[in-house]
Amino acid sequence: MENELKKFDVAQLAHVEIFTPDPDKTLWFFKDLLGMIETDREGQSVYLKAYEDFYHHTLKVTEGKEAGLGHVGWRTSSKNALDRRVKDLEKSGYGKGWIDGDLGHGAAYQFVTPDGHPMEILWDVDYYQVPENEKTQLKNRPQKRPIKGVPVRRIDHVNLLASDVTTNKNFMMDELGFNLREHLVNNDGSEGGAWLSVSPLVHELAFMGDQLGGKGRLHHVCYWYGYPQHLHDLSEILTENDIKIEAGPVKHGVSQAMCLYAIEPGGNRVELFGDSGYLIFDPDWKPVTWREEEVDKAIIWYGAPLPYEYFRYGTPIIKEKVETK
Amino acid sequence: MENELKKFDVAQLAHVEIFTPDPDKTLWFFKDLLGMIETDREGQSVYLKAYEDFYHHTLKVTEGKEAGLGHVGWRTSSKNALDRRVKDLEKSGYGKGWIDGDLGHGAAYQFVTPDGHPMEILWDVDYYQVPENEKTQLKNRPQKRPIKGVPVRRIDHVNLLASDVTTNKNFMMDELGFNLREHLVNNDGSEGGAWLSVSPLVHELAFMGDQLGGKGRLHHVCYWYGYPQHLHDLSEILTENDIKIEAGPVKHGVSQAMCLYAIEPGGNRVELFGDSGYLIFDPDWKPVTWREEEVDKAIIWYGAPLPYEYFRYGTPIIKEKVETK
Amino acid sequence: MENELKKFDVAQLAHVEIFTPDPDKTLWFFKDLLGMIETDREGQSVYLKAYEDFYHHTLKVTEGKEAGLGHVGWRTSSKNALDRRVKDLEKSGYGKGWIDGDLGHGAAYQFVTPDGHPMEILWDVDYYQVPENEKTQLKNRPQKRPIKGVPVRRIDHVNLLASDVTTNKNFMMDELGFNLREHLVNNDGSEGGAWLSVSPLVHELAFMGDQLGGKGRLHHVCYWYGYPQHLHDLSEILTENDIKIEAGPVKHGVSQAMCLYAIEPGGNRVELFGDSGYLIFDPDWKPVTWREEEVDKAIIWYGAPLPYEYFRYGTPIIKEKVETK
Amino acid sequence: MENELKKFDVAQLAHVEIFTPDPDKTLWFFKDLLGMIETDREGQSVYLKAYEDFYHHTLKVTEGKEAGLGHVGWRTSSKNALDRRVKDLEKSGYGKGWIDGDLGHGAAYQFVTPDGHPMEILWDVDYYQVPENEKTQLKNRPQKRPIKGVPVRRIDHVNLLASDVTTNKNFMMDELGFNLREHLVNNDGSEGGAWLSVSPLVHELAFMGDQLGGKGRLHHVCYWYGYPQHLHDLSEILTENDIKIEAGPVKHGVSQAMCLYAIEPGGNRVELFGDSGYLIFDPDWKPVTWREEEVDKAIIWYGAPLPYEYFRYGTPIIKEKVETK
Repeated sequence: MENELKKFDVAQLAHVEIFTPDPDKTLWFFKDLLGMIETDREGQSVYLKAYEDFYHHTLKVTEGKEAGLGHVGWRTSSKNALDRRVKDLEKSGYGKGWIDGDLGHGAAYQFVTPDGHPMEILWDVDYYQVPENEKTQLKNRPQKRPIKGVPVRRIDHVNLLASDVTTNKNFMMDELGFNLREHLVNNDGSEGGAWLSVSPLVHELAFMGDQLGGKGRLHHVCYWYGYPQHLHDLSEILTENDIKIEAGPVKHGVSQAMCLYAIEPGGNRVELFGDSGYLIFDPDWKPVTWREEEVDKAIIWYGAPLPYEYFRYGTPIIKEKVETK
Repeated sequence: MENELKKFDVAQLAHVEIFTPDPDKTLWFFKDLLGMIETDREGQSVYLKAYEDFYHHTLKVTEGKEAGLGHVGWRTSSKNALDRRVKDLEKSGYGKGWIDGDLGHGAAYQFVTPDGHPMEILWDVDYYQVPENEKTQLKNRPQKRPIKGVPVRRIDHVNLLASDVTTNKNFMMDELGFNLREHLVNNDGSEGGAWLSVSPLVHELAFMGDQLGGKGRLHHVCYWYGYPQHLHDLSEILTENDIKIEAGPVKHGVSQAMCLYAIEPGGNRVELFGDSGYLIFDPDWKPVTWREEEVDKAIIWYGAPLPYEYFRYGTPIIKEKVETK
Repeated sequence: MENELKKFDVAQLAHVEIFTPDPDKTLWFFKDLLGMIETDREGQSVYLKAYEDFYHHTLKVTEGKEAGLGHVGWRTSSKNALDRRVKDLEKSGYGKGWIDGDLGHGAAYQFVTPDGHPMEILWDVDYYQVPENEKTQLKNRPQKRPIKGVPVRRIDHVNLLASDVTTNKNFMMDELGFNLREHLVNNDGSEGGAWLSVSPLVHELAFMGDQLGGKGRLHHVCYWYGYPQHLHDLSEILTENDIKIEAGPVKHGVSQAMCLYAIEPGGNRVELFGDSGYLIFDPDWKPVTWREEEVDKAIIWYGAPLPYEYFRYGTPIIKEKVETK
Repeated sequence: MENELKKFDVAQLAHVEIFTPDPDKTLWFFKDLLGMIETDREGQSVYLKAYEDFYHHTLKVTEGKEAGLGHVGWRTSSKNALDRRVKDLEKSGYGKGWIDGDLGHGAAYQFVTPDGHPMEILWDVDYYQVPENEKTQLKNRPQKRPIKGVPVRRIDHVNLLASDVTTNKNFMMDELGFNLREHLVNNDGSEGGAWLSVSPLVHELAFMGDQLGGKGRLHHVCYWYGYPQHLHDLSEILTENDIKIEAGPVKHGVSQAMCLYAIEPGGNRVELFGDSGYLIFDPDWKPVTWREEEVDKAIIWYGAPLPYEYFRYGTPIIKEKVETK
């Protein structure tokens, strides 16, 4: 039964921490353009949430020398589930140990992926304490919808570059019970990308091969709108405010995400998810395998091809010798 | 651990059977206007699916003397999960016994709710066998998107009228592991409605109090679009084709569903769900309680109030003495 | 040829002035929720525009004892056209004479409708002088799209209550060259409403019968979004901020407008137009006549019926003895 | 006054004729995927309309050896206006003479642009005679909205390649009273493109420089949806049915069109217009000039750059020696 339970032990993506060399502009991007709410500050970090995120924060923006991933936090489905996962992580060799917590949550167990991405797993969380003037009559929403920017609704997923997709994918499946939903499989049998989830979402976590040979890099963090029009609205806002839209709006084949990719002023890629994609309720889901010759439709179901840099740019940035395509 | 597992044992709403006194027109409604696909016929029944439903069918339309609910089918998360749930159902006194199956699935265990709504629970399902000309390159979609009507994407939920909401809600929670997500609580402590789910959806199943004192009636079955525009498109199509739109498009407070209610020609109410609502990932979700004085916002977050008949009409139809509002 | 020219002499609705007893809250409504831009202030008046309005202002908000219409301003298609229209207005008996102008425009000729609605007609206008930080690279847009509220794009039309629809309609057609596009005709031959335009829009101006016997009242002023989603976005914003949504989103039959009606805090009704309706390019358009028995579809093509007060409430407010529907 | 009247003499784009070497597949594209209605057939021609087109047809599909433009038909604002325009066309040297008419319209005067695009101008038109079962209660709509494909609403504009943009633009302005709304001006003073209209639409007609030195070629004909979601819906339908989407959905700077370009099976490019763009009501509109260094935002306001072939492909097709970009 412990084996049956494992795939239910991790419940959700709780938060992501990113580093930025330009916190003022990064915060302007997330707060003024994406309508996110600042909930706390401590040291070099500012805590943010979307208006339908229920917890203290889902994004921690920390000043750093360069852009990149701080860590990814996962919440388990119970205290028991946390204990079971920590026991396995300890055995795995990738566990790092407990911390007392952070603003917004209690004790967390830190670990790394085989590629070195810092992660933590936890149970105790603080809910957002909504100020009086932000209280809403919509009782399943933690606060009023903002009247600033084109406000994102909730955190959706994180996408990580990995020197080896398969090893990292297996680690998340074996130790944390993630399900493989879709993957790109090259003709030599290696995996170019893998989309993993613990819920009906197609992914809370993806790994894509790091074509520059980096380790532990961030490809993007994604916030969710649910409505295609908001990608169009945001595209205008970003263009008018000189934020680079790397790609989109387009529709991926993988995950059926209608999406837009922008580079926030600190240098990290941010995805905005503009519809509901599809949801996986089948408990016996067979992973969708996109073979090398099918990869075009996997990447773009409709819309323009992604630019070259999409497959190479990540944070921290690796400077490439200039080359033509 | 068995107790920990219970809330993961039921995976999803698999299918709904409805009765109709006018199968030709009911099928025209579902196939020509909602773009559903006929996958099979046997006896007095026709099997239908939406283009993103993966199984053999999600709707079974059976000729009957009057409109109403045939049965509701639930799929478990594994064969073991099915065994566990049947064991509990047998003890509950509401179990009816095994059937060999139906077109589209294998052995199923039949039971009723305390109110008498026929249900079944099963593990073995048949996947839709897509004809060559309907095959799509979008590998996570079971078939091409239809070019007929305003095609619905998948089954979403079923809403049942109950003589006593609390008893039926408790039965589904205790025997089948459903989670209570939202409910309406009257000042006398009774429940006017309860929304229950086994996934991040706010509900695959709702019970609402039957104000006409019926037992085991159907309020509506719901199919999902995900996009608000499609409710507008469908509203035009229904109006042009003389199908009664009972209400909508409006946005509920409960579940944040943007929705439309229509009465299919056989008499059953059908809901169309036009956005993604919100999803519940918090494993420690506290049910949202709408008190009697908050019920207006619960029912309609924005849009016109629902008509009187919404709260009384169900199938089979109970004829009321004519009275003014 | 003068007769041929008449129907091209008035080019567009230039601006509307409304009175409000609560200018602070009225301005908060238009600026913070509808994202309009304050461009000037003088005396008791504040001048506003939407981000795709090209002129100095399209809305003048003037403090007054009670809500109501200040005046409606029309722009002609040339200086000659202005002279021709003034000549006819002078003869009509409804002309009032020239004023030197106002902030934002030059000399204007004032007149009233037979019902007494104050209007003016003019040629010289000032274009909005956009501040440096609001300049956009989208050269056909006068300024950046705001990042506040759900920003409206441009003024659309004005709807006036009239003690006699036909007389007022004829005046606008005969003296100003408006075209009748649609009208409601009662069984006794009287008109319940008339929609008039000088462009492919179905109306820049409508008259509806004042069921309370008022004269010269305002039914609503309308701003335009063009996208249905923005009505849904605004509905949430209005609901969260305790602004009364009188009706909508619904789709009218007349004009095919998808719309929402709200009462701004000063008491005036404001319509928001959430799609493009249909446009009339046929130069030989036969007015659409909705007979008394067709009026339901004229008013609501799909969506809930309009509330009782929609047909009676206007500004200035006429207090009615309380009665039940 | 004749000069004042000239700019009002042409009222609208009435219809476009295209040639196709594969009429069956071209008709499948327009009827099954775009939901257009076949209204007549004669000889090698089939007549089609969108469901909100009021006349007998707006598209005439004629079998031909190769794809290309048959002719463009313009309707004047009156019989007098037609006489005035014909008088000027006769003097211009580009007039060809009268024809008795065609299915759907009466006498028409034929002419060519300086580049040789065949055109005609007319007053008498036939309205669509709607069959009983297609009649709608929406009295401003000529027929029911179809339940096939993703149905387009009306014809919007035609875009022609020209060996010299300026000459052709001037011809349409001088002889037919078109207004220049936007244009691309190269650093050497030549025009790369010009967008012209006789209504508040930014264009019913555009000329773009033919980079392959062709004469009289068609770049595209455009039908209108008005809703962005329909471009997303159609993108799926086209992709599933192996129709090439050349570009989009993207948003142009010029005209603010959200659009998609597809190549119909006969080889002609078709644009679908997915929102309302912006409308020009200012009677004193100064043409928007996009200089060479501003051309990127003119072409794409947001979305991916257009592919190379967009600027070279037209019909009839001119075969190019293969070269790399």
